[in-house]
Amino acid sequence: MMRGFSEAEYRARVDRAQAAMERLGLAALLLTTEPDIRYFTGFLTRFWESPSRPWFVILPMAGEPIAVIPSIGAALMGRTWLRDIRTWAAPNPADDGVSLLGKALHEVARGGKVGIPSGPETHLRMPLADFGRLQAVGIDFGDDDGIVARLRAVKSEDEIAKIAQSCAIAGRAFERMGEVARPGVAMEEVFRGFQRLLLEEGADWVPYVAGGAGPLGYSDVISPADETPLAEGDVLMLDTGAVWDGYFCDFDRNFAIGTANPRAEAAWSHLIEATLAGEAAAQPGARARDVWAAMARVVGTGETAGRLGHGLGMQLTEGLSLSARDDTELQPGMVITLEPGIETAEGVFMVHEENIVIRADGPQRLSPFASGPLPVIGR
Amino acid sequence: MMRGFSEAEYRARVDRAQAAMERLGLAALLLTTEPDIRYFTGFLTRFWESPSRPWFVILPMAGEPIAVIPSIGAALMGRTWLRDIRTWAAPNPADDGVSLLGKALHEVARGGKVGIPSGPETHLRMPLADFGRLQAVGIDFGDDDGIVARLRAVKSEDEIAKIAQSCAIAGRAFERMGEVARPGVAMEEVFRGFQRLLLEEGADWVPYVAGGAGPLGYSDVISPADETPLAEGDVLMLDTGAVWDGYFCDFDRNFAIGTANPRAEAAWSHLIEATLAGEAAAQPGARARDVWAAMARVVGTGETAGRLGHGLGMQLTEGLSLSARDDTELQPGMVITLEPGIETAEGVFMVHEENIVIRADGPQRLSPFASGPLPVIGR
Repeated sequence: MMRGFSEAEYRARVDRAQAAMERLGLAALLLTTEPDIRYFTGFLTRFWESPSRPWFVILPMAGEPIAVIPSIGAALMGRTWLRDIRTWAAPNPADDGVSLLGKALHEVARGGKVGIPSGPETHLRMPLADFGRLQAVGIDFGDDDGIVARLRAVKSEDEIAKIAQSCAIAGRAFERMGEVARPGVAMEEVFRGFQRLLLEEGADWVPYVAGGAGPLGYSDVISPADETPLAEGDVLMLDTGAVWDGYFCDFDRNFAIGTANPRAEAAWSHLIEATLAGEAAAQPGARARDVWAAMARVVGTGETAGRLGHGLGMQLTEGLSLSARDDTELQPGMVITLEPGIETAEGVFMVHEENIVIRADGPQRLSPFASGPLPVIGR
Repeated sequence: MMRGFSEAEYRARVDRAQAAMERLGLAALLLTTEPDIRYFTGFLTRFWESPSRPWFVILPMAGEPIAVIPSIGAALMGRTWLRDIRTWAAPNPADDGVSLLGKALHEVARGGKVGIPSGPETHLRMPLADFGRLQAVGIDFGDDDGIVARLRAVKSEDEIAKIAQSCAIAGRAFERMGEVARPGVAMEEVFRGFQRLLLEEGADWVPYVAGGAGPLGYSDVISPADETPLAEGDVLMLDTGAVWDGYFCDFDRNFAIGTANPRAEAAWSHLIEATLAGEAAAQPGARARDVWAAMARVVGTGETAGRLGHGLGMQLTEGLSLSARDDTELQPGMVITLEPGIETAEGVFMVHEENIVIRADGPQRLSPFASGPLPVIGR
């Protein structure tokens, strides 16, 4: 499968953003985060792990994007479709690109409003003091009104193919979990082994792994692994956001270690049933809350509980939430997770997760849906 | 080695921050990013990979920190030393913790100034629109004047031990590079293989890998790997930020593939010499720019070139820059990288990197310093 996207795809993304900017009266967009910048430019690097340098892309209401970036990124940005690349020697505590960026914004916006992604899931990736300096030189900033988030929520065929690739990689790694998980193996070794399997099956990298284990499930799904060994009869859950060419999968698997506990098996059946109910409800035109309700009905979740799935793509989680509070309409091209959870004992849970894409004629599976009884490994 | 830190260590960090806050007249600090929150609480999770929820910790001028966090994190935060943990059901687009946070800030600050890390390397990890809502309810925000950054720059013995552990892990993985790199192997497979070796040698996870290859080096050090195969005579460089218990190493190794090019060997010798010159200059009381100058003299770098090393710890890069512009004084407990680079041909470079900690009596090596001729693998 080809890495990256055609220049035509990036131009189409820019065209759609510019049409929305015109409707909103925005003279430019200022982008500062990894996924927003990558979405319009194709600039893909793990160097964002370093917090030391800010990166900027300006999307004018007309014309091509302008990159205002540290010189260390000039070579890589020069291999994207962008032609207007302006650099400074960063880090420079005295002026870390602020005057260069301010000049470019003045030139492009000419006093007009500059939209910044400011809604849910966003942040401004630059020092607050530097943002104040830009405001002080008279740049008029405002909210982008969710333009970028709405564009990113509907995936192209080439984006969907990359997510499908990540899902297939994780699916193959999960098939091999018996190689690394058995009674007596410490959870931190299980996590390491799982990450190794993901790499062997083709992941470029593994930004996210979570999991838990216990006789009836786990007390939370965000804790890191420790030295606690797996025990016979545990339910082990592993959840991953593995990446291929910058696109995530995000699904999990549960395994019974050695023997399956009947109560865990019953919870598992409920989770599978809920996932299928969510899948059936995930039709174009349905609302996020409808899909939530279909799953909540099966697992008996109340309105106050967390979400039972979310959007997925260039980030582990992005876009809509499958919750009672979210009435986003499902559109063809949206990629979402179905993630029902069930409480098996006081403060103990099991969760299950799969990935689908919404199509004009209904949902299409991206992850290899689990079925049948709770799988037993490590015997 | 024990994971985490003693409660006494967290309390000492809070005490130092509060003393600085008092001098500055700050009623509270508001922390929103992963490393800043982890530094004072011990809250360690890979769940930050999800951008969907903001997380907040308030450090009052007196008393204990207050966590204002999504309910999904309550169980894990409850296992830290924090006792005042306030939660909301997130994501909630209508009010994502803003009113809960505003109430807590009013209660703690009582009209006084709330400091936010706002200088180099920082950002505010919450939607800009929500920050505006907090300002609108009368919270008086200001810069933290680098309090948090300065505290984090000087590591405790337990922090240094964790960085040393990460360095040892990466050192063992580099020793095994001959298992995964030889002529004909695609760079993306080399990257995967290297990450697998890091996990096998004990890394919890591998947030950062970079590298490059070519007869005389590489055109940049931030590009992702592609299908290009290694060729006989290439210089292969791999650089990693691998993590153990939340602490990074950050160093690289160069290898000749099959045979060593004499010009690459000569550049390598210069890099080793520059690294040793940097090490010798890295004495307590010296300035960051002195260490830069010691290395720049050997590799012939001008003042306009980028930095030749940086601070290291909970993030891949943090704190000072070894550059002509940075006059930070080296203090015992600072962990830094020495990272000289040399241009071997027009637009082609080789870089070398090692990690040290500044001690009262001089630098101590944390990474296993490379020496001797350019190592040859893949024969």
